[in-house]
Amino acid sequence: MPSRSPRLVAGLWCATLTPLTADGGIDHPRLVEHVQHLLAHGVAGAAPFGTTGEGPSLSVAQRRAGIDALLAAGVAPTRILPGTGCASLAETIELTRHAVTAGCVGALVLPPFFWKAPSDDGIFAWYARMIEGVADARLRVLLYHLPQFSAVPLSVDLVARLAAAFPGTVAGVKDSGGDWNHTQALLARLPELSIVIGHEPDLPRLMRAGGAGTICGVANVFPDLVAALLAPNVTAPTEAGIARFIEILFAQPFLPALKSILADQRRDPAWRAVCPPLVALTAAQQASLRDTLRAAGFA
Amino acid sequence: MPSRSPRLVAGLWCATLTPLTADGGIDHPRLVEHVQHLLAHGVAGAAPFGTTGEGPSLSVAQRRAGIDALLAAGVAPTRILPGTGCASLAETIELTRHAVTAGCVGALVLPPFFWKAPSDDGIFAWYARMIEGVADARLRVLLYHLPQFSAVPLSVDLVARLAAAFPGTVAGVKDSGGDWNHTQALLARLPELSIVIGHEPDLPRLMRAGGAGTICGVANVFPDLVAALLAPNVTAPTEAGIARFIEILFAQPFLPALKSILADQRRDPAWRAVCPPLVALTAAQQASLRDTLRAAGFA
Repeated sequence: MPSRSPRLVAGLWCATLTPLTADGGIDHPRLVEHVQHLLAHGVAGAAPFGTTGEGPSLSVAQRRAGIDALLAAGVAPTRILPGTGCASLAETIELTRHAVTAGCVGALVLPPFFWKAPSDDGIFAWYARMIEGVADARLRVLLYHLPQFSAVPLSVDLVARLAAAFPGTVAGVKDSGGDWNHTQALLARLPELSIVIGHEPDLPRLMRAGGAGTICGVANVFPDLVAALLAPNVTAPTEAGIARFIEILFAQPFLPALKSILADQRRDPAWRAVCPPLVALTAAQQASLRDTLRAAGFA
Repeated sequence: MPSRSPRLVAGLWCATLTPLTADGGIDHPRLVEHVQHLLAHGVAGAAPFGTTGEGPSLSVAQRRAGIDALLAAGVAPTRILPGTGCASLAETIELTRHAVTAGCVGALVLPPFFWKAPSDDGIFAWYARMIEGVADARLRVLLYHLPQFSAVPLSVDLVARLAAAFPGTVAGVKDSGGDWNHTQALLARLPELSIVIGHEPDLPRLMRAGGAGTICGVANVFPDLVAALLAPNVTAPTEAGIARFIEILFAQPFLPALKSILADQRRDPAWRAVCPPLVALTAAQQASLRDTLRAAGFA
């Protein structure tokens, strides 16, 4: 077995929101500006085109061009970990190979999300064919456990089997299931992997338990708050703050709400656009969200 | 409002299985042979790349090339209604436009299947942008209601809203939900649409209620049986026969089982291959399926 590489992802990464043009494509100038802004404000890296980035709504060609736009603007590829999972295996291979060839630090790969309740053998075969199809020793995969959207949970046994079959290549798990027992089981069984989570309130206990960090959506709008959650001596007010923010966010459709908050912060309404079937917040919803956030001290 | 066109789909259509090459691509010669075989055996048309055809597992490029192979072999485009739904709107537009430009009679379009529980407004916006993006008056869409896979049910109200907004273009529904109440509600509310179903045992009552016919998987292996279900005076043995066949099929992973039955009929093991995360039947499962079918009189 080759020696373990350093952790694929550590600390604060941002599940980057995707700005859209009027015709539904990726707005490259705003994407570049946003990623550069994040990197200048304490974020270690950007994970564009995951769930928060509406990745599955974007075509392979759009995501390829988005990666290229970031690189062309001078963002270091070691700071980019794109979501490359597609329903189609061939398209996942194409997009992942593009990311690897471009030098991206790794790829966040959803399991195939059309089929419901596939067997662990079937999911294993899919990831194995994907890795063998990319056929590049530089490939480092972050498996994406997000059963509430993908409908395809990645069991601890399956992750262990993939990590054993592809050591170094299968480098970690983004555990966005929000089930701390699952996260704990991954940490205990697979200490050599990068285990990162999406659910911000669990970050203090993740870091105490040896987790790697986070790829999270809140970092788009309050990176300092997330950074405080990762610090060794996280305070009670910080923990209460993230709990309250998440509560407010999930009282709305959370992704349009997150884009609306960013639009307000940047005074740039273009950030409100979402890909259908998501629907942007109405003016009334925006106003209510603004009031609630201000009352809670987030203005 | 323009006058209604004749029904998009009527009678017996086959949700065509997709033969695969060793590297996971579409086996064009076998696909062409299978479709020509079906058309010579009483099937009115082929619907490749739906769920039975593992459409979401195939890339846009693979599906485009599959359509082109059928046309190049002389299959009339009026006999082809491909599945063109992708998680990405841009890719759905690209593939649907290809089908329309090639002269295909229509396109079977899944709703965007990554996001869970989108609103009717969001699904409406997605289909509207898809139709406006294809921007071709020849486009005729069969909406695809398959909540057990897509996780996105198409409510009767949503179908009515789309049919009213795009008369003639939204030409029907493939209702594969297997819920007769939903099918009845569609028939009652939207008599001008082609309402076809996938669940074969419901066909006799569908035809009595004014439904258009079927796009179904069993037609790959027993087209005569499905044709008998569509006849005006369907017999009790025919109804019992399809019920028994469906019971046997769904005791296995149904799609690998259907491919295994076809492989046996054609004495061509290549038909057994499936795209991961589906898993082909083991030799033991194949033998058991063969025995059960033979005992039930399907050999």
